[in-house]
Amino acid sequence: MSRSIEVCFSPALYHLYHKPDAVVMVTDILRATSAICTAFNNGVRELIPVESTDEARSYKEKGYIVAAERDGIKLEFADFGNSPFNFTPEAVKGKTIVYSTTNGTEAIHLASSSYRVIIGSFLNLTASCRYLSEMDRDVLVLCAGWKDKFNLEDSVHAGAVVECLTEQYGFQSTCDSALASMDLWKTAKGNLVEYMNKAAQRSRLRKNLLDDVIPYCLTLDAAPVIPVFSEGKLSPHHT
Amino acid sequence: MSRSIEVCFSPALYHLYHKPDAVVMVTDILRATSAICTAFNNGVRELIPVESTDEARSYKEKGYIVAAERDGIKLEFADFGNSPFNFTPEAVKGKTIVYSTTNGTEAIHLASSSYRVIIGSFLNLTASCRYLSEMDRDVLVLCAGWKDKFNLEDSVHAGAVVECLTEQYGFQSTCDSALASMDLWKTAKGNLVEYMNKAAQRSRLRKNLLDDVIPYCLTLDAAPVIPVFSEGKLSPHHT
Repeated sequence: MSRSIEVCFSPALYHLYHKPDAVVMVTDILRATSAICTAFNNGVRELIPVESTDEARSYKEKGYIVAAERDGIKLEFADFGNSPFNFTPEAVKGKTIVYSTTNGTEAIHLASSSYRVIIGSFLNLTASCRYLSEMDRDVLVLCAGWKDKFNLEDSVHAGAVVECLTEQYGFQSTCDSALASMDLWKTAKGNLVEYMNKAAQRSRLRKNLLDDVIPYCLTLDAAPVIPVFSEGKLSPHHT
Repeated sequence: MSRSIEVCFSPALYHLYHKPDAVVMVTDILRATSAICTAFNNGVRELIPVESTDEARSYKEKGYIVAAERDGIKLEFADFGNSPFNFTPEAVKGKTIVYSTTNGTEAIHLASSSYRVIIGSFLNLTASCRYLSEMDRDVLVLCAGWKDKFNLEDSVHAGAVVECLTEQYGFQSTCDSALASMDLWKTAKGNLVEYMNKAAQRSRLRKNLLDDVIPYCLTLDAAPVIPVFSEGKLSPHHT
């Protein structure tokens, strides 16, 4: 039987799309899941995503390295924020890092009752689609969005995954949000950076002088890793 | 100051987009808001939208004409379901009709705490955008969706409204769902009927042999009326 792919545009709608037996890919392009892929590509051993800043602070007090921000601003007690550029090989190789972000962490925990949760971004597009194609499971892409609102960059990335899984790997989709996201991707992919100029999150980052990472976050296949969430931690899938 | 237009893809996200001072356009293309526009174009005096089937039944017992369905199927006690084709001049002219549908009625009531609620569809696209342009208010398009999920036909219609208000009437939008819906509309508008063939609701209607109304519901400006919701009733706006 053919496998299906669906897309959920907001964590607030997740209960309508939840499938216990599916693999969920969480996407939060600007910037959490792009940073996570970068960290694993640069050799981090594991990432512990936490939801609250209190929890992040308490890990810090126990001696962990902590990456944490809210609304794009590094928290004062944290070692760094969540720009992918912070996760250099020098900073992360072989280490365990505690990680808390505005939208991404919550989405990961929300999806954790499904069969498996993996991290998706443009940086691991081809590798993550291949990984999904090798599992005998339906797929749900969960967009982290912005404070439960629809956002453009996560939805366009979801569409790239839908296109790849349906056109290359025979997945089916009768899910309207999957079909819409694929059309958005087809409109955007010719010039992704220019397309994303209009996204609301881009304006938010620019206001905070954080938009230097955007072209990088929109680069296909720059970090071909598969971060998998299990028992409270993200670890790299080893092929 | 320039006015803004935003789009909310699901009633479940409405609380994130609610603006007390805005005009909300409710859209439920297949088929509630298309039927409502048709009814007013054919001279209905007023429509009373009700949420529950019990409420619809109790109006019926009081002697009202009742249009009611669930999941596309006419309720047994109702005079007719919500195909626009039922709302002929012979059936509706000068009358008050009680109206209950799966998603549309709920969306109307949800938005009723905003400044004003109007009904939008492709059938009144030009007229409804002109009406919105004449008010000194921000606009929110609320898609009724399908059981709180995103749906394609309402979102594409929202995009048509965004295009018209931004390109013809100087509205601004920094709302990602508004921008996405406009791109979907731009993809779809060259051949709207063919584009909508893939929508999930189309499959649901076809299964119930109700898809005869789809090309009509996708016809621009066939029912140039402005149904306005006030004090529990929809009435036509008279210019």
